Amino acid sequence: MSETKDSFNTEMTTSRLEAFSDGVFAIAITLLIIEIKVPSHETLKQESLMEYIIHHWPKYFAYVFAFINIGIYWVNHHYLFKFFKRTDHVFNLLNVFFLMTIAFVPYPAGILGEYIVEPEHRKSAISFFIFSMWLPAFAWLLIWLYASHEKRLTDERLSETFTKKLARLFFLSNVLYIISFLISLVNPVAGIAVSLGLTLLYLLPPMKPEYQ
Amino acid sequence: MSETKDSFNTEMTTSRLEAFSDGVFAIAITLLIIEIKVPSHETLKQESLMEYIIHHWPKYFAYVFAFINIGIYWVNHHYLFKFFKRTDHVFNLLNVFFLMTIAFVPYPAGILGEYIVEPEHRKSAISFFIFSMWLPAFAWLLIWLYASHEKRLTDERLSETFTKKLARLFFLSNVLYIISFLISLVNPVAGIAVSLGLTLLYLLPPMKPEYQ
Amino acid sequence: MSETKDSFNTEMTTSRLEAFSDGVFAIAITLLIIEIKVPSHETLKQESLMEYIIHHWPKYFAYVFAFINIGIYWVNHHYLFKFFKRTDHVFNLLNVFFLMTIAFVPYPAGILGEYIVEPEHRKSAISFFIFSMWLPAFAWLLIWLYASHEKRLTDERLSETFTKKLARLFFLSNVLYIISFLISLVNPVAGIAVSLGLTLLYLLPPMKPEYQ
Amino acid sequence: MSETKDSFNTEMTTSRLEAFSDGVFAIAITLLIIEIKVPSHETLKQESLMEYIIHHWPKYFAYVFAFINIGIYWVNHHYLFKFFKRTDHVFNLLNVFFLMTIAFVPYPAGILGEYIVEPEHRKSAISFFIFSMWLPAFAWLLIWLYASHEKRLTDERLSETFTKKLARLFFLSNVLYIISFLISLVNPVAGIAVSLGLTLLYLLPPMKPEYQ
Repeated sequence: MSETKDSFNTEMTTSRLEAFSDGVFAIAITLLIIEIKVPSHETLKQESLMEYIIHHWPKYFAYVFAFINIGIYWVNHHYLFKFFKRTDHVFNLLNVFFLMTIAFVPYPAGILGEYIVEPEHRKSAISFFIFSMWLPAFAWLLIWLYASHEKRLTDERLSETFTKKLARLFFLSNVLYIISFLISLVNPVAGIAVSLGLTLLYLLPPMKPEYQ
Repeated sequence: MSETKDSFNTEMTTSRLEAFSDGVFAIAITLLIIEIKVPSHETLKQESLMEYIIHHWPKYFAYVFAFINIGIYWVNHHYLFKFFKRTDHVFNLLNVFFLMTIAFVPYPAGILGEYIVEPEHRKSAISFFIFSMWLPAFAWLLIWLYASHEKRLTDERLSETFTKKLARLFFLSNVLYIISFLISLVNPVAGIAVSLGLTLLYLLPPMKPEYQ
Repeated sequence: MSETKDSFNTEMTTSRLEAFSDGVFAIAITLLIIEIKVPSHETLKQESLMEYIIHHWPKYFAYVFAFINIGIYWVNHHYLFKFFKRTDHVFNLLNVFFLMTIAFVPYPAGILGEYIVEPEHRKSAISFFIFSMWLPAFAWLLIWLYASHEKRLTDERLSETFTKKLARLFFLSNVLYIISFLISLVNPVAGIAVSLGLTLLYLLPPMKPEYQ
Repeated sequence: MSETKDSFNTEMTTSRLEAFSDGVFAIAITLLIIEIKVPSHETLKQESLMEYIIHHWPKYFAYVFAFINIGIYWVNHHYLFKFFKRTDHVFNLLNVFFLMTIAFVPYPAGILGEYIVEPEHRKSAISFFIFSMWLPAFAWLLIWLYASHEKRLTDERLSETFTKKLARLFFLSNVLYIISFLISLVNPVAGIAVSLGLTLLYLLPPMKPEYQ
């Protein structure tokens, strides 16, 4: 707000970036519900409404699973953005790329909810969903590598050790998503189980930052 | 914003949490309208547009009812968040769970609007809607119990009596939703009437906080 | 943020209320576009894509018309909220009611875009749209009457004359919407023309506030 | 917030305007995904789910292309708004017009994704998309010309040279969009290629502001 001529550059403060990102997170997470459609009168000629509601548990599973994943990314986005003291143009574009991968989630989540129970489509549905879960992890890693490289945008008080620890963690996360993707190509149920395990791991509290 | 090294931890300020929650509330409440579809030309061969608009009153009823319920939760979310001075990881996750139940509402609201007038589906439509109204009440209770336990996250000036009074109120709210759910299984119209009464009760101003 | 025990009550600051309202405004206004559907391959067997795009001008008209109306309400919401120094529970509920009428607009706007060109449905489409434009004007009047009554929530520096001038203006606005609604029941084209005129009037800058 | 009587006028601060604009940007950009539909069971009788997912690359292309374009407009919106020190009523309305062109993008993006691969509709789909990309550029130019005219709303420290340089740049951008639109009418693939080139150009960091 109180910008002096010297401090002026073409970058945004991280708070504006966070507000916009929060908006995309909030919308992507809330749009998940529109993949669960109200049944048509035609559909309810074959089963009762109660049967329809109960029988659509895969939709609820996909909704909850995707919601938690986006929710975790949101929590982590805030965690990570506390370490950034500046932004620059490349960083903004990387964040747009990250948001693009988050906003994409309702589509594979919709496919997962519709086809996870159908044996002939299960593998494609699960693999595609896990692939789409890997995309934000990849963008995430890029953001961190770019921003923490020689403390380009990060808080200079952060210890080198901690910065590297996070980089290794985010790299590992990519590896694990790729592994669970590969597993899903062979055994979809095992793939989604590993992916669920990954999600549960992310529910653990993030690491305490270390300062010099 | 002006974070000192000591105060730094992995938690967000409640204001960021509130901003994200407001986003989800605003989107969920606005998405309710997309359950009311513009009629197709095919549909309007059977009735005039004016008849269609008037005859779809159950859709408007479901829209208004769900809108008011989400609106009340939003008002109460702000009321309650004034008592929180900190957040932690578990609290963030509980809030994500709460938002998941709010973002879910457009689906049962759509079902209610479509099937409340059809005798054979009415019971399922009403029971499912009341069930989905109970979910946020349940998440709400968990949030309060977790945050107020030994003043973990709440304002330490709040009196013990007031904290317990709120816990009892939120517990009671759960009981009343469950009762109206059970009633709806026997008599759907009575169930929705009780549920409407509950909503009207929530329109009353919330309790004045008491301090030590 | 820096709340003292004395100032604490169950009301929100107007800034939180504005942020939530902005969210609903932003979503309602952006949702208007989803009423303009991408044509199916089936549809394009009867006309070329270019013909389809051009021939759907009523959709664009409805989009632009509804967008401007919501946009104006948003501009005016900010204008009016500058005069409020406090909120209370009833005020919050009235604002929720107002937002409910704003979030409703995509439905009548969709009907307007679909049926304004069809002679047999034109009257219903136009009348319903004008009716739905009147609803926020009505909620608006209620908000002002409630908040300005004996300076309940308004800035005490506002002159009595100015407060009454606004009340008369908002009342007049209701009368004009009702008149254009009644006209549309007789002559839909005249009704929409009057309603368009009203919108153009609202594009004029709002009145300068007067202080004692 | 701390408004004195003298400073009061009917204008908003730019921060409120930015918050609302961010909301519309975030929603428009996230709504792009709903143009990519989960396939019906009927559709999957003709091809496997995996084939469907891969074969729909034009949808992903349109999603990524439109996402980046809106993302760039958002980055530039913040860049430009740093130069504005005030707003006025006309400025607010011009910004509503700009947002109307941004919120419109999901429709032509949906058409692009659906029909870019079909020879008979390709030209219309591409031309319409480029046309809709030109609209925000046009609104953008209007905003700048209006706000910078005799430093009506801009920071008075900005050098005259810089102000004119931006005006020329924004004018040029309009010319380039119109040229790529005209090219697309003759050769759609060349048109989209030029338009892609334009987008890549916009990925370059914006100009450093110059002060007197």
